[in-house]
Amino acid sequence: MEFRPSEFMAGVRERRPLVHHITNYVTVNDCANICICAGGSPVMTDGDDVADMVSISSSTVVNIGTLNARTVGSMEVAFRTASSKGIPMLLDPVGAGATAYRTETAEALMSMRPTVIKGNAGEIGVLSGIGGDVKGVDSHGSDDAAEAAAQLARATGSIVVATGETDYVSDGDVTYRLENGTGMLGNVSGTGCMLSSVMGCYIGAFGRNMDAVASAVTVFNVAAEAASGRCGGPGTFKPVLMDALFALDGQTVDAATRCERL
Amino acid sequence: MEFRPSEFMAGVRERRPLVHHITNYVTVNDCANICICAGGSPVMTDGDDVADMVSISSSTVVNIGTLNARTVGSMEVAFRTASSKGIPMLLDPVGAGATAYRTETAEALMSMRPTVIKGNAGEIGVLSGIGGDVKGVDSHGSDDAAEAAAQLARATGSIVVATGETDYVSDGDVTYRLENGTGMLGNVSGTGCMLSSVMGCYIGAFGRNMDAVASAVTVFNVAAEAASGRCGGPGTFKPVLMDALFALDGQTVDAATRCERL
Amino acid sequence: MEFRPSEFMAGVRERRPLVHHITNYVTVNDCANICICAGGSPVMTDGDDVADMVSISSSTVVNIGTLNARTVGSMEVAFRTASSKGIPMLLDPVGAGATAYRTETAEALMSMRPTVIKGNAGEIGVLSGIGGDVKGVDSHGSDDAAEAAAQLARATGSIVVATGETDYVSDGDVTYRLENGTGMLGNVSGTGCMLSSVMGCYIGAFGRNMDAVASAVTVFNVAAEAASGRCGGPGTFKPVLMDALFALDGQTVDAATRCERL
Repeated sequence: MEFRPSEFMAGVRERRPLVHHITNYVTVNDCANICICAGGSPVMTDGDDVADMVSISSSTVVNIGTLNARTVGSMEVAFRTASSKGIPMLLDPVGAGATAYRTETAEALMSMRPTVIKGNAGEIGVLSGIGGDVKGVDSHGSDDAAEAAAQLARATGSIVVATGETDYVSDGDVTYRLENGTGMLGNVSGTGCMLSSVMGCYIGAFGRNMDAVASAVTVFNVAAEAASGRCGGPGTFKPVLMDALFALDGQTVDAATRCERL
Repeated sequence: MEFRPSEFMAGVRERRPLVHHITNYVTVNDCANICICAGGSPVMTDGDDVADMVSISSSTVVNIGTLNARTVGSMEVAFRTASSKGIPMLLDPVGAGATAYRTETAEALMSMRPTVIKGNAGEIGVLSGIGGDVKGVDSHGSDDAAEAAAQLARATGSIVVATGETDYVSDGDVTYRLENGTGMLGNVSGTGCMLSSVMGCYIGAFGRNMDAVASAVTVFNVAAEAASGRCGGPGTFKPVLMDALFALDGQTVDAATRCERL
Repeated sequence: MEFRPSEFMAGVRERRPLVHHITNYVTVNDCANICICAGGSPVMTDGDDVADMVSISSSTVVNIGTLNARTVGSMEVAFRTASSKGIPMLLDPVGAGATAYRTETAEALMSMRPTVIKGNAGEIGVLSGIGGDVKGVDSHGSDDAAEAAAQLARATGSIVVATGETDYVSDGDVTYRLENGTGMLGNVSGTGCMLSSVMGCYIGAFGRNMDAVASAVTVFNVAAEAASGRCGGPGTFKPVLMDALFALDGQTVDAATRCERL
């Protein structure tokens, strides 16, 4: 690769971006804690002070994992504020394709031009129009998640990340294939949401930057690899993952990186 | 016993039921993760797509631990949808008896004929009319939790589970007494909610089935027994419990089972 | 010191206060579990039964970490009920100073005369009028957090706690400086919220009492010191902190106490 994840990791830790979140109530605590372990400072609000809080933040992360009329309104305020002030914004369209409400909400937010759209392969498949199978909030990718990511990136202007056993990051022009990670991530609720929070730190520190986004994925997945060897199962994996991300050193992450340009 | 919990456990793991939840915001993350560790796939929504999400789910779990006018409406939609489609549904009437609002909400949901009603002995005592002492969301059972469970089962047509140091499962005709478990479960918030999620997996895979429900209780409690010997206190108990449930093997659970028909 | 934290700790464990919370959805699970580990029994409701639930509680804890129009209304009901019945009440004004909405909400709740106001040094600085720098929900204290705490205590009649590397407890007349704790507390989301829950136990058991409040801070921080030496990072620190608080013995806490009257 032309970039080193360690450099972006160091930059995030130094700048300590304030990452505003409107995320689901299932995994929000994990998002807050992984954000700290990645080097950021999390803040969550979806009430009357969303615009004020986004205005002082380095980035905003919107995750539709649990949504209702009130919070969807707050998500739109967050994106409108971020957009008008040039603050990087990430959309995690959890469950798009599973219900019409989620698909439509994701499309409405997508039209506000987030810096990054990050979903699993099924969600990105659905949103790209290529198609995908979404069951609840899990999914199985289309045969070509890379193509779905690239196509959605071209259609939206966003950097698109499609996660799965293999992860893809695309700006529509260039696409990276990332091979780090562990199957244990699939046994814990919210690891996708946590990855979005880590990405929120990286775009908070570096703005719209393919290499920063790919570094966020890599750093998280390398920490997960380390944690999977040190835990006793899905329950202890999560705290150990946080320890591992917090302590990760640059040499380790660069040596472990498995990322190639397609 | 006439049944082996290991067979139900294997069935759940094989079928991987999608378990929809409307639960409280205190313990929802633990519900999601224990559901995965039990072999299911959790999904949480209480917004405008409840009916759509319940329709694609294997079961729905409704827990009134934190309720408000909006979410109570969503709970009713979830049960109405499940009822009309023959999807198994579980009610956990947290805090019934502590406040009139909770008792009335529990009664309204109970009248929608859930497949399973699961509460602690105090809650089941109150709902059965036998009476019980509910302080906040903790409680002490009436002297005869078995009788309360059987009576409520006869009155509602539901399978009723009354938990405590000893757990009872009754369909009004047959009642099981289950003796597995550990006092450590009382030192962690939400272990009752987690048990409801595990039951959601078992009724999602097997429908209305006394033996499946008793197996869910047993499997969870046997995992808890294993975890209590491997943790350092209430904080580490929870992740270790998840590890233990995820890794539990059939022989261990059958050998440890302490269940008798009354 | 004139008091021994061990005596208050024993009293809380014996009386097992029921602590009602309206807190944020980010850290609410940790608040529930630390409350149990401190010797209390937590209950959370922000719906139509707030007044009923507060009425049967030993104390009420209000934390504005995530607030919206509905929950702010519930917070006011909680404080109004507690006030009219002489039930101890604690306010944690998370993020006051970061947005006008939070500052105004904190001021409105502060005017209802909570027994304790507990914030970080920045929040207390802002509310005291001395000033402080609040970025998101983190902050840096004014140069004189002790003076801010004393001034706010005199203005409100509340016992005021200003937390940071050094913690201060003041009733406007007497001020304590507390030096226990560990930097690891700053690497975990919600440790401030957890401390508020622990304080909720202590005022639930002992009412308006400076020594009880200072004991709550000390007991929590001594447990954190023990946990910091036994964990692998921020992820494992949290469960180990809960284990440590649950198991803490009186001799250890009294021997470790670093508290002086200014």
